[in-house]
Amino acid sequence: MPAPTDYEVFELGDLVLQQGATLRDARLAYKTYGTLDADKSNVIVHPTWYSAWHDANEWTIGPGKACDPGKYFIVAPNQLNNGLSTSPSNTPPPFNGPYFPPVTFHDQIEAQHRLLTQKWGIESLELVLGSSMGAGQAYQWAVSHPEMVKRAAPIVGSSRTSEHNQVFLKSLRAALCADPVFNGGRYSPDALPTVGLRAFARIYAGWGLSQAFYWQREYLTMGYSSLEDFLVGFWEGFWLDGRDPNNLLAMLWTWEQGDVGKTPGFDGDTEAALRSIRCPLVAMPGRTDLYFPPEDEQWASQFIPHGEVRVIDSIYGHFAGLGFYEPDNAFIDTALRELLDRPA
Amino acid sequence: MPAPTDYEVFELGDLVLQQGATLRDARLAYKTYGTLDADKSNVIVHPTWYSAWHDANEWTIGPGKACDPGKYFIVAPNQLNNGLSTSPSNTPPPFNGPYFPPVTFHDQIEAQHRLLTQKWGIESLELVLGSSMGAGQAYQWAVSHPEMVKRAAPIVGSSRTSEHNQVFLKSLRAALCADPVFNGGRYSPDALPTVGLRAFARIYAGWGLSQAFYWQREYLTMGYSSLEDFLVGFWEGFWLDGRDPNNLLAMLWTWEQGDVGKTPGFDGDTEAALRSIRCPLVAMPGRTDLYFPPEDEQWASQFIPHGEVRVIDSIYGHFAGLGFYEPDNAFIDTALRELLDRPA
Repeated sequence: MPAPTDYEVFELGDLVLQQGATLRDARLAYKTYGTLDADKSNVIVHPTWYSAWHDANEWTIGPGKACDPGKYFIVAPNQLNNGLSTSPSNTPPPFNGPYFPPVTFHDQIEAQHRLLTQKWGIESLELVLGSSMGAGQAYQWAVSHPEMVKRAAPIVGSSRTSEHNQVFLKSLRAALCADPVFNGGRYSPDALPTVGLRAFARIYAGWGLSQAFYWQREYLTMGYSSLEDFLVGFWEGFWLDGRDPNNLLAMLWTWEQGDVGKTPGFDGDTEAALRSIRCPLVAMPGRTDLYFPPEDEQWASQFIPHGEVRVIDSIYGHFAGLGFYEPDNAFIDTALRELLDRPA
Repeated sequence: MPAPTDYEVFELGDLVLQQGATLRDARLAYKTYGTLDADKSNVIVHPTWYSAWHDANEWTIGPGKACDPGKYFIVAPNQLNNGLSTSPSNTPPPFNGPYFPPVTFHDQIEAQHRLLTQKWGIESLELVLGSSMGAGQAYQWAVSHPEMVKRAAPIVGSSRTSEHNQVFLKSLRAALCADPVFNGGRYSPDALPTVGLRAFARIYAGWGLSQAFYWQREYLTMGYSSLEDFLVGFWEGFWLDGRDPNNLLAMLWTWEQGDVGKTPGFDGDTEAALRSIRCPLVAMPGRTDLYFPPEDEQWASQFIPHGEVRVIDSIYGHFAGLGFYEPDNAFIDTALRELLDRPA
């Protein structure tokens, strides 16, 4: 599936990044679902996961679901660097490709805050949810703008990227960069480093799903006929299909550096940042997630005044929170519904 | 630590491999500890793990330990392809380097069987133990020569390499081969594909130890000052230090194909092969091992008539069975002692 084209663009203007550089004439691609109420009190924000576009969130949205567009105005902002919003791949020289400056989770949320406040005058969010890197953005929203966020639901993600998770990310980077075609990011868009991307895909394949998923050969139920068919057909296909390597590395940096303690004002103190979250927050890690394990969310939850952890009891590993398996989706939808029903 | 030089060599002659090729004038490097009794009834065999040499087994050997050289004659055969025994790196053309034929676990044990029977006339083994790929060899011994093996102790390994484990191995191969210096295995020994080896190392770093190991920053207790210091100093250092890439890929193939059901006579039936094991077998997986998880060993154990599983309750992941952490070593030594004390 190539990148979707059904989105709008908000002109962010110049965005001064946390690390000091400026994104000039930056743009945020987004899609909305439903209608904004007159009193602007029905807003849900749902940022995107690593490498994904807004359409990857649509499994959570629909009539009768927690995120019902008949009731809520749902905004799905594409994270910077995902190829639709301002990214290495669509920025002209001199900040193009490998010369694009690093973007933090804090920067992502500042861009989204501009969209919501400047375009619509929104001052309050009924819910911020997100999966994986989207969960990191949900945490960041709750820490950066506690005055706006009434409920948060980070799914298969974390408030701080653990060192083990960082090792996984570093291995992805090392494999992609080992391909000589990558050439320090100075490849041609017409000749991508496909050998490196295929190695990247095979690393991801081991981490993304669980031991039990492969033991039970669940890929057969997804329409793949063998392990190799799944590795090439699904995994290599996914990363070769419209994913720009410099964009991937830029998002990887955001992920690797993830830590709400790095929010301005907290001086690196993750626990203090978690303590500052005012709203109810329901974290949903997957029981068999290999890089965002439930323990990390249980650790964070102890510091969040109204924090709670609901573990998705699934063998789909990280994918338990990405909309791939109906029972997991139903579990998440139920939790979101209960959270939205709670007075804030 | 470069390859050790304190070993002897047994001339295997011509070894016809399971896949059809012949290793001509093959050699098996080994080291022995202790003295063979007159009645040849005190033999322990301890094969090597992936990439390791015999010296990596020495943490199990010593006065007062289960494997006491004052009591037992302990033979540590270096697996074919590890650089000391016949391997891609030490074989002359035309079977050198990438042209070296594939070796199965069955072939490994046939080579070791020749050493024991032809050199010493040994007919009975008190114990076969091994960690990781050494565990695969212990299983293979118990299946290939049930008439000889009186006890077996596979540690952090399995009787059949799971598909999830295979994905990990395929990712290692893809990353190493992405380095153009690798050149299909036709690199110069003086110019190794170090970029690919470093990517290989970073992948391994995530898999080899557990989430909890990194969360608790256990590498600090091993003398490393930061995550990056550990990744470069320990992991990249390990794989850059005398490990030949073609040897690594040859051993990877053995591991990936591991399955006692592929033993001649079993026609791929893993369960039947496990049922054929006559001796007591104590499997010791690590609780947090990411690629040889305890479930795989519990699955296998149900078919082994005298099978038992003792889980090493450790946060050292796969390393729980490699001699890195004293409490894990003590757990294993106790289990080995109890097994050796059992009448066979």
